[in-house]
Amino acid sequence: MPNNQIIVLDNRPQGEPSTSNFKLISADTPALQEGQVLVRNHYLSLDPYMRGRMNDSKSYAAPQALGQVMVGGTVGEVIESRNPKFQVADIVVGRGGWQHFTVIEPQSVGEYRKVDPSRFSMSHFLGAVGMPGVTAWYGLVKIIAPKAGETVTVSAASGAVGSAYGALAKARGCRVVGIAGGQEKCDYVVNELGFDDCVDYKQHADAVSLSKALKVACPQGIDGHFENVGGMVLDAVMMRMNAFSRMAVCGMIAGYNGNPLPMSNPSAILINRMKIEGFIVGEHPEVWPEALQELGDMVASGTLSPRETVAQGLAAAPEAFLGLLKGKNFGKQLVKLI
Amino acid sequence: MPNNQIIVLDNRPQGEPSTSNFKLISADTPALQEGQVLVRNHYLSLDPYMRGRMNDSKSYAAPQALGQVMVGGTVGEVIESRNPKFQVADIVVGRGGWQHFTVIEPQSVGEYRKVDPSRFSMSHFLGAVGMPGVTAWYGLVKIIAPKAGETVTVSAASGAVGSAYGALAKARGCRVVGIAGGQEKCDYVVNELGFDDCVDYKQHADAVSLSKALKVACPQGIDGHFENVGGMVLDAVMMRMNAFSRMAVCGMIAGYNGNPLPMSNPSAILINRMKIEGFIVGEHPEVWPEALQELGDMVASGTLSPRETVAQGLAAAPEAFLGLLKGKNFGKQLVKLI
Repeated sequence: MPNNQIIVLDNRPQGEPSTSNFKLISADTPALQEGQVLVRNHYLSLDPYMRGRMNDSKSYAAPQALGQVMVGGTVGEVIESRNPKFQVADIVVGRGGWQHFTVIEPQSVGEYRKVDPSRFSMSHFLGAVGMPGVTAWYGLVKIIAPKAGETVTVSAASGAVGSAYGALAKARGCRVVGIAGGQEKCDYVVNELGFDDCVDYKQHADAVSLSKALKVACPQGIDGHFENVGGMVLDAVMMRMNAFSRMAVCGMIAGYNGNPLPMSNPSAILINRMKIEGFIVGEHPEVWPEALQELGDMVASGTLSPRETVAQGLAAAPEAFLGLLKGKNFGKQLVKLI
Repeated sequence: MPNNQIIVLDNRPQGEPSTSNFKLISADTPALQEGQVLVRNHYLSLDPYMRGRMNDSKSYAAPQALGQVMVGGTVGEVIESRNPKFQVADIVVGRGGWQHFTVIEPQSVGEYRKVDPSRFSMSHFLGAVGMPGVTAWYGLVKIIAPKAGETVTVSAASGAVGSAYGALAKARGCRVVGIAGGQEKCDYVVNELGFDDCVDYKQHADAVSLSKALKVACPQGIDGHFENVGGMVLDAVMMRMNAFSRMAVCGMIAGYNGNPLPMSNPSAILINRMKIEGFIVGEHPEVWPEALQELGDMVASGTLSPRETVAQGLAAAPEAFLGLLKGKNFGKQLVKLI
């Protein structure tokens, strides 16, 4: 059996995380038992939610256990199977973790799905045609539910969720405006992703200044917003939300280091009769087939062509993850394992 | 024609409002034109939303104009009519303002509704069987939509909205817990209004302390909350909201004096996949008939028997209004005009 390389959570961060929170270990892959499947992972996805799992605090998911393989989405190839659901050479997507090889237990086989790798790079199943893409789809279609002509916005617009959101919103006839950090990302959001405009939050020292830039980019106000960040960006957006506007809340990345970030003016919820809804896309399996169909067609046709930042080799994952938390990546952050 | 007494907004408050912001003036009631209706107001309703109107700032409604009669709900008797919709002696509810007599313009006749005063005091049409009651109904039934057995909470529980909310929630099989200021109000909420429990926020110096008391009163957490206050109460409630909980936001009274009160930890929206929705009940006329039917039956049967605080005479209205903003009233605050 092949030798496996595994990254485990070694200790929990005190404040800002560092590479010393992780440890790379080696272990032999055990012989397969009846019902098990062995997958060689090709790509590992790095996502902001992993930061929350590193803490030992109440959240929508249990904390990452110490000494255990870090949780993470993967796409890979079945190299051995003792389960009728999967055959050798199948390409499967699931939560294989930060490791080269994953043994799928019989009771977990249903959490992996077989995908068709013929239309585009299999890495997209971790981004636009995977969890981030469906996240954008759910927030836009099910919570914001925009009408053609409405203005919708998204923070972290150059990321995997933001890029899919932009394409989905344009397909529905919306004006779509991104919020991103830096001129290079904003140029990408407008020129490559096809957003109508993008505001660089790094040009603004406070929420009032940022909200003025949003007013220029959204002259009719904001009807729907997808929040990935929190803090100053959220405060600025709140000042521009229209009456009867909707906000999907999917990330509060700025608050993960133990500093809860307040919402400065929640009275805007009442003044503008807003609806704000938090969600976790894994809790809505009923939408995945419809969402993946639309997203897959968009990537295959080139309507959605998101960039990826690919770190090389499992050992590079911790550094790449810390970079992701600081916004150093451009588009979807992946680790190529093979 | 009778002489009219009118309270106008004389000047806008700088910070905390005072009686000097109001002025009592006198004017003859003009002879009725074709299509007009003359109403002698019996009761004037005082409500927190009026504080927002006194400011010259963006809100869901235009600011109260200076020098004009203060806006306010009234119930009264038609004493002269040149409009076929209303007859002399009809009892009508509408926004007649802070004055003894109201001339209803032809184009505004539709904003008044005729009520049946035979089952209970006409004052209830300004409270439990009026706007506050329908407000409670909409927030509970349309936004929170509780299942039997769920725990629901409400701030300002002893007020007109809170008392109706409690009765409506009990009728739906919920555990209902109030939040109110002072032991006397909490006793009233439990002993007279029939809530399962009530937490006195004045016993707590901060949100963490208040949230601990809420944990005792709500051992299964909070599934639905109706927010009338904001600030510390909102922060404490947010710490106890369950996964997939719903919050109806109808008031942020604590922030009206120019100090926006932050929401300390909006990441709870995501962590608990909450839905938060602000609303103004006047924008949902479709629910009024059903809501008023249920509320009227509850008051007529005695299931809902809310207390009223009644100030005597129009001149007492400003002082009573300022007391309302400070929580001095007990139940619905009214002014008896006749």
